[in-house]
Amino acid sequence: MESGASLVSTPGTLPCYVAFSQLLGLTVVTMTGAWLGLYRGGIAWEGALQFNVHPLCMVIGLIFLQGDALLVYRVFRNEAKRTTKVLHGLLHVFAFVIALVGLVAVFDYHKKEGYADLYSLHSWFGILVFVLYFVQWLVGFSFFLFPGASFSLRSRYRPQHIFFGATIFLLSVVTALLGLKEALLFELGAKYSKFVPEGVLANLLGLLLACFGATVLYILTRADWKRPAQAEEQALSMDFKTLTEGDSPSSQ
Amino acid sequence: MESGASLVSTPGTLPCYVAFSQLLGLTVVTMTGAWLGLYRGGIAWEGALQFNVHPLCMVIGLIFLQGDALLVYRVFRNEAKRTTKVLHGLLHVFAFVIALVGLVAVFDYHKKEGYADLYSLHSWFGILVFVLYFVQWLVGFSFFLFPGASFSLRSRYRPQHIFFGATIFLLSVVTALLGLKEALLFELGAKYSKFVPEGVLANLLGLLLACFGATVLYILTRADWKRPAQAEEQALSMDFKTLTEGDSPSSQ
Repeated sequence: MESGASLVSTPGTLPCYVAFSQLLGLTVVTMTGAWLGLYRGGIAWEGALQFNVHPLCMVIGLIFLQGDALLVYRVFRNEAKRTTKVLHGLLHVFAFVIALVGLVAVFDYHKKEGYADLYSLHSWFGILVFVLYFVQWLVGFSFFLFPGASFSLRSRYRPQHIFFGATIFLLSVVTALLGLKEALLFELGAKYSKFVPEGVLANLLGLLLACFGATVLYILTRADWKRPAQAEEQALSMDFKTLTEGDSPSSQ
Repeated sequence: MESGASLVSTPGTLPCYVAFSQLLGLTVVTMTGAWLGLYRGGIAWEGALQFNVHPLCMVIGLIFLQGDALLVYRVFRNEAKRTTKVLHGLLHVFAFVIALVGLVAVFDYHKKEGYADLYSLHSWFGILVFVLYFVQWLVGFSFFLFPGASFSLRSRYRPQHIFFGATIFLLSVVTALLGLKEALLFELGAKYSKFVPEGVLANLLGLLLACFGATVLYILTRADWKRPAQAEEQALSMDFKTLTEGDSPSSQ
């Protein structure tokens, strides 16, 4: 699969798995929209429909975009490391902003309706994920994009950043599943056990959410799919390094 | 940290993380028992209390014991590979049998009470986990304990076995969280939003379940904590190998 002397080879089946993950991710977003449109009256910023902004924004931001942000190092194997880093950081910013809109929507809706906040397991997980996501972004930015962190510090932090990134993504999927379950039990009640179409659709959506999470995790953890080091990366990284230090550059 | 010429060194902080995981696991089991004892009337095989056998068995089997089964290769670093393999397989058998009791309990309870089966997201995840767990055990046994699989076949399957093992464990944690959420919404209803003690205790139990899952995953995925190859392993594995094959032995 060598495509050129200056290019990094792409493992044969990686594009298939990435395509499958995108198909799953887009299906999950579409199904969330279909569920809200068909059974919950659609989306608006006013009235009862404001609540529906919450699940759609969270699925687009903290599931689909966050998942894709994790995959950029596997997909863009031939781009300069810095370009990929910036794309990774930007996708996380988009994900965060969209999720923030979703968060504001539900708090605003609760306030208008006089509902209590932050009592459920879903909300506890949600707040935890949101705080961890923000902290992870800030720390990641400080270490990898902001100049100053030494190579040895970056190398030591990198495995932690990857582990916590994957964990926050998985916690986001868990939070979405808990929210979906909550929405079904609140709305359907005893009808849920009659296999009504909304319940079956939402259960399938839940399974696909988990499949998307597992597929992203598989692509991330395949040892032979990791982005190999490129000679130019060391040179580019040197721009941000205090050259007087004794650390040796490390790649990937 | 070298403890002897014939022994594999144990990374300094690994025992601390393993101890922490056990503390979390035991706390989760204890809290599940406390929740069922304090707020759900305890456990029995007859009447309404039969349902309570289900969450307790699932948490002991598919959370605590399954998690521990995944950790044996990190904990027993100085035992022969085959002993560790047998322990890994046996812990999974115990986990499966205990989970089977929990599964029978809930189906039997539903039948007696005339409740519908397998309509909820929790139950769909549960059945999926149960089937995957059984298949993974069978395939794992065929490849790694039953004599016959070649070394190259074992080496190719090993990363898949590890990925799917970790994924099934994480899906078990997700299923437990969905079940906990279901139990809270069914029983507490509107009281849940008043921060009643049962709701707060169960939310904390949910967070600890996720912490246990994350800690086990962290120990499993730390690259420098992987069990190193031992010379004796190759010799032991040779007992199960058709020596006429051209494959060369591979370790861990």
